[in-house]
Amino acid sequence: MIQTHPGIKAVSMQNIDINGGFWYEKQKLVHDVSMWNVYKRFKETGRFDAFHFTWKEGMPNRPHIFWDSDVAKWIEAVAYYCEKQREPEMEAIVDDVVDAIEEHRMKDGYFNSYFELLEPENRFTRWNDHELYCAGHLLEAAIAYKRATGKDKFFKLMKDYIDLIYQVYYVEKSAAFCFPGHEEIELALVKLYKETGEKKYLDLSLYFVDARGYSEPYNANIQSHLPVRKQKTAEGHSVRACYLYSAVADLAKETGDSELFDVAETLFNNITRRRMYVTGAIGQTCVWEQFMGDYDLPNQTAYAETCANLSLALFARRMSVLNPDAKYADTAELVLYNSFISGMSLDGKSFFYSNMQEYDHVVPTRNYHDGHRIFTPAPQRVEVFSCSCCPPNVVRTVASIADFMYTADENTVWMHQYFASHAAFDGAEIDVATAYPYDETVNITYKGKSQTLALRIPGWCKQYTVCKNGAAVETEKNKGYVYLPVADGDVLTLTLSMPVRFVEANPRVWEDAGRVAVACGPIVYCMEGVDHKDIPLRDIRLKRDADYTRVTDETLGVPVLKTTGLVRTWKDDVLYADESDVSPCDVTLIPYYAIANRGESDMIIWTLLA
Amino acid sequence: MIQTHPGIKAVSMQNIDINGGFWYEKQKLVHDVSMWNVYKRFKETGRFDAFHFTWKEGMPNRPHIFWDSDVAKWIEAVAYYCEKQREPEMEAIVDDVVDAIEEHRMKDGYFNSYFELLEPENRFTRWNDHELYCAGHLLEAAIAYKRATGKDKFFKLMKDYIDLIYQVYYVEKSAAFCFPGHEEIELALVKLYKETGEKKYLDLSLYFVDARGYSEPYNANIQSHLPVRKQKTAEGHSVRACYLYSAVADLAKETGDSELFDVAETLFNNITRRRMYVTGAIGQTCVWEQFMGDYDLPNQTAYAETCANLSLALFARRMSVLNPDAKYADTAELVLYNSFISGMSLDGKSFFYSNMQEYDHVVPTRNYHDGHRIFTPAPQRVEVFSCSCCPPNVVRTVASIADFMYTADENTVWMHQYFASHAAFDGAEIDVATAYPYDETVNITYKGKSQTLALRIPGWCKQYTVCKNGAAVETEKNKGYVYLPVADGDVLTLTLSMPVRFVEANPRVWEDAGRVAVACGPIVYCMEGVDHKDIPLRDIRLKRDADYTRVTDETLGVPVLKTTGLVRTWKDDVLYADESDVSPCDVTLIPYYAIANRGESDMIIWTLLA
Repeated sequence: MIQTHPGIKAVSMQNIDINGGFWYEKQKLVHDVSMWNVYKRFKETGRFDAFHFTWKEGMPNRPHIFWDSDVAKWIEAVAYYCEKQREPEMEAIVDDVVDAIEEHRMKDGYFNSYFELLEPENRFTRWNDHELYCAGHLLEAAIAYKRATGKDKFFKLMKDYIDLIYQVYYVEKSAAFCFPGHEEIELALVKLYKETGEKKYLDLSLYFVDARGYSEPYNANIQSHLPVRKQKTAEGHSVRACYLYSAVADLAKETGDSELFDVAETLFNNITRRRMYVTGAIGQTCVWEQFMGDYDLPNQTAYAETCANLSLALFARRMSVLNPDAKYADTAELVLYNSFISGMSLDGKSFFYSNMQEYDHVVPTRNYHDGHRIFTPAPQRVEVFSCSCCPPNVVRTVASIADFMYTADENTVWMHQYFASHAAFDGAEIDVATAYPYDETVNITYKGKSQTLALRIPGWCKQYTVCKNGAAVETEKNKGYVYLPVADGDVLTLTLSMPVRFVEANPRVWEDAGRVAVACGPIVYCMEGVDHKDIPLRDIRLKRDADYTRVTDETLGVPVLKTTGLVRTWKDDVLYADESDVSPCDVTLIPYYAIANRGESDMIIWTLLA
Repeated sequence: MIQTHPGIKAVSMQNIDINGGFWYEKQKLVHDVSMWNVYKRFKETGRFDAFHFTWKEGMPNRPHIFWDSDVAKWIEAVAYYCEKQREPEMEAIVDDVVDAIEEHRMKDGYFNSYFELLEPENRFTRWNDHELYCAGHLLEAAIAYKRATGKDKFFKLMKDYIDLIYQVYYVEKSAAFCFPGHEEIELALVKLYKETGEKKYLDLSLYFVDARGYSEPYNANIQSHLPVRKQKTAEGHSVRACYLYSAVADLAKETGDSELFDVAETLFNNITRRRMYVTGAIGQTCVWEQFMGDYDLPNQTAYAETCANLSLALFARRMSVLNPDAKYADTAELVLYNSFISGMSLDGKSFFYSNMQEYDHVVPTRNYHDGHRIFTPAPQRVEVFSCSCCPPNVVRTVASIADFMYTADENTVWMHQYFASHAAFDGAEIDVATAYPYDETVNITYKGKSQTLALRIPGWCKQYTVCKNGAAVETEKNKGYVYLPVADGDVLTLTLSMPVRFVEANPRVWEDAGRVAVACGPIVYCMEGVDHKDIPLRDIRLKRDADYTRVTDETLGVPVLKTTGLVRTWKDDVLYADESDVSPCDVTLIPYYAIANRGESDMIIWTLLA
């Protein structure tokens, strides 16, 4: 049994200023482009207007059960941007929404734009209608907005609503269901508890978690097939699952309940050791976005919703606060640089719902099984989709990405992610200068009290060096971290060797047998058809010992790898032959996150080796 | 455009006595075991009783629309065995059926046990109810039975019935449809034409072929989406397709219509160059047993019905009579030794409907797409199934396998298949002594008039020698045949080198990319889980240069290949790793046709190379 580490706490992005590199660029892009593009699409589709209750039968854009949550996540992103610099134009939009909530909420504090307008008599009656999910997202947004701007109207409105939920679900138990079909409020309630210190919110969160598996519906899709404390495998809808597990981790932290930690640990291991794509993506099947069985990781039919992938990173981040093991931050890093940020186009305008793990354009046109065309993901991102949970989830996460960087206890700061940044907390200032993940060097300047800095050595990194004030330091890894004493003025240089790696999958993953995924640092690479005209991507063989040259692709504007591979020459119109010649072919490997930015194109991650 | 060769004719199995080797053993097994086992199962399930019209509502074993054809194919097999030696016990069963047909047929000659008993008013009204298909099979059986036994009652009854069909479909055009939904009668009618010399039967066959695509139903499933003469790709139900194409080839032969030959040639090439598994299996999807698109050859979900695979061999055999190109006999051979004979268990008792092309036991338990469990074939043969077309199709084909051996014109005998046998026809006697396909040597003793013998050099054979009367002969291949003058008393020795081959698939077949199928002579090999406990078969790598030792497997009683391959050692419970060790592992490759004879087991044909 792993002993958790009660003294560790999260370090909020409020203390950290991302000031260069990969995430700085993404934050700028999201701020300048994505925020407005998402706003525009949400405005056009009626999501903002829904708060004003103006929709009437016969009008377009009928309010939908989860629209409140879409807007809430956008507001949350506004709040995170306000932490750095106030955003009058965005705030005006938020304040208008808040005013509308104040105007239209029910007398008892209830607010839900769909139920109030369309079927107020049915509030709190249907477990799968995302009512508490919306409340949770509104609550997260309200907390973030209050923290960032000091404006507390939204927070008070939401606190009233949560108090009603507490009364109905916890005190009276008068709702038609005991726990929500889509988890989210559980983790939001922990935030509210931490914001207010009021234990009732922690109690309600724990109640929602522990109610599962003890009353109807018993349903693996929503993680209520068993009591949560008895769950050992990640089942059902993958976003819901990881939101639940995130809450379980939060509750383990806040209550010190080691059983909850063990549950979270078991589920985390099940996902990351058995049910996760090499890009960190999860939720293998389009059927209810569910997890499938161990090692069942089909590439072409992967669902891998952006929100699902992100939810695993959110879960991993919470585990770092319980147990200083680098495996959590390794997973968060894998997701963030690959299957999370792949969810957004390089121009910041459009988004994936499913993140394809392989694409062959002929497959969706031809493969039928049992008379049903099999699911293959959309090969291009779009600006808005009817179920538009992902775009606002991307923007709020990019805006608050610094949350992934640090945890700390009284004497130690754990450095989980290497983002170029300035941080100030607990009597210390830490400056990170780096072009990571494309450069091996991370320069860290420390100011403040003497304590220990724990540097994560990523699981993918086989060779690293640490220098302190110019001199090499002997280090030893403990669960993936090297622990270094630091004092005011120390300068550390961490070098993480990043050769091209050829990642193999567990032999039980039959779809990947005989193939490798190319990676360099935390970035997983892939091939796109657009770079390999007329060559079937699955037939290209990479050479382990060839040169892999990193160049910046002019069109994509991101570093890509150029190499020479082999491809079969197959001259005759025959299906089968005993011998084929191979000839060299130019190969371009692009970062997985950069797929589908040059039009529809075949794509493959798992590649043959010569 | 290929010039057909009008002088060539088929040489009937009536002239050939299989007297040793692979097919002798199969004929004996089918005679002693399969014939009686199929009879017993058909008797138990009411298929024989149906001819006596004793079934009444509420009784079990309600007659089915295609039962007549099941029994007909069994009768056809009886007839072929009678060619060698009369079979009083089997003949008594046949004669009883024939008497029942005589007793119960309608006054105008119509006979169908289902329609007469259950809905006589609906005869000739439903295109997809297998009425003319049954008539075709009964006709084939009746012709064979008359030829073999001289008893012509059955033949006369069927001729009456066909005359009625001619009247209804060709003269009056009074049926509710113009062509059958399941082809078969077309090729049977050509046999009747050849048996009687009456051109009306040829006319009717041609009418049925040419009616498709000119009236309802227009349906690719039954090859009526286009006029047959305009079809360029093999579409729809694969058995129906190849029965149709067989008739097209027969009609091309009998009418000399070169357009029909061109259609057949185009379709043959489309199948064998784009839509055929490496075992010769066809019909990629369980949905209506259809052909899928070019290069779309998924292994785990392959349908590959025994009848479909066989139908390709029947089609190929007919093409040999039109055009002396060895590609047809190559295809027939591939099917016969692999995906045809795989349809029957080694003990002769049970049969596959679908012939799996790969099997991983976890797949049917876990893979969902769009909420539908994907089709995977039954991993074990069964003694009878509700749609039991395959068992009697296997027995009639094994019994008449010698039909595949020869074609001849005035001056040349083409030797397509090397079965140990004695043949006597056209003033020549040919003895073949060989342990082919397991031995490289074929000894041929010729007696009779001086003429030319054309020996097929199989497409898989890269090195061969021919000796005549002990002396090596210089030969040249012409479309896969070497042409040798022979005179009375000549002894030829053909040696066909059979090294282990590593067959690759066209790069467009994405499921097989990076993999090889092991073959030796015409036999395709595979691995079964039962020989490789706990090792994922898809992860085993074969070494091209290793020794492959042929030994007879004690349990299977067939030659298998033993070699040493490599397998990854994967010690940790992790999904992905940069480096893995490989270690040697013992590998057993068994002939594909021998799969699933040792209980349920994983199976793979397409294997990695080290």
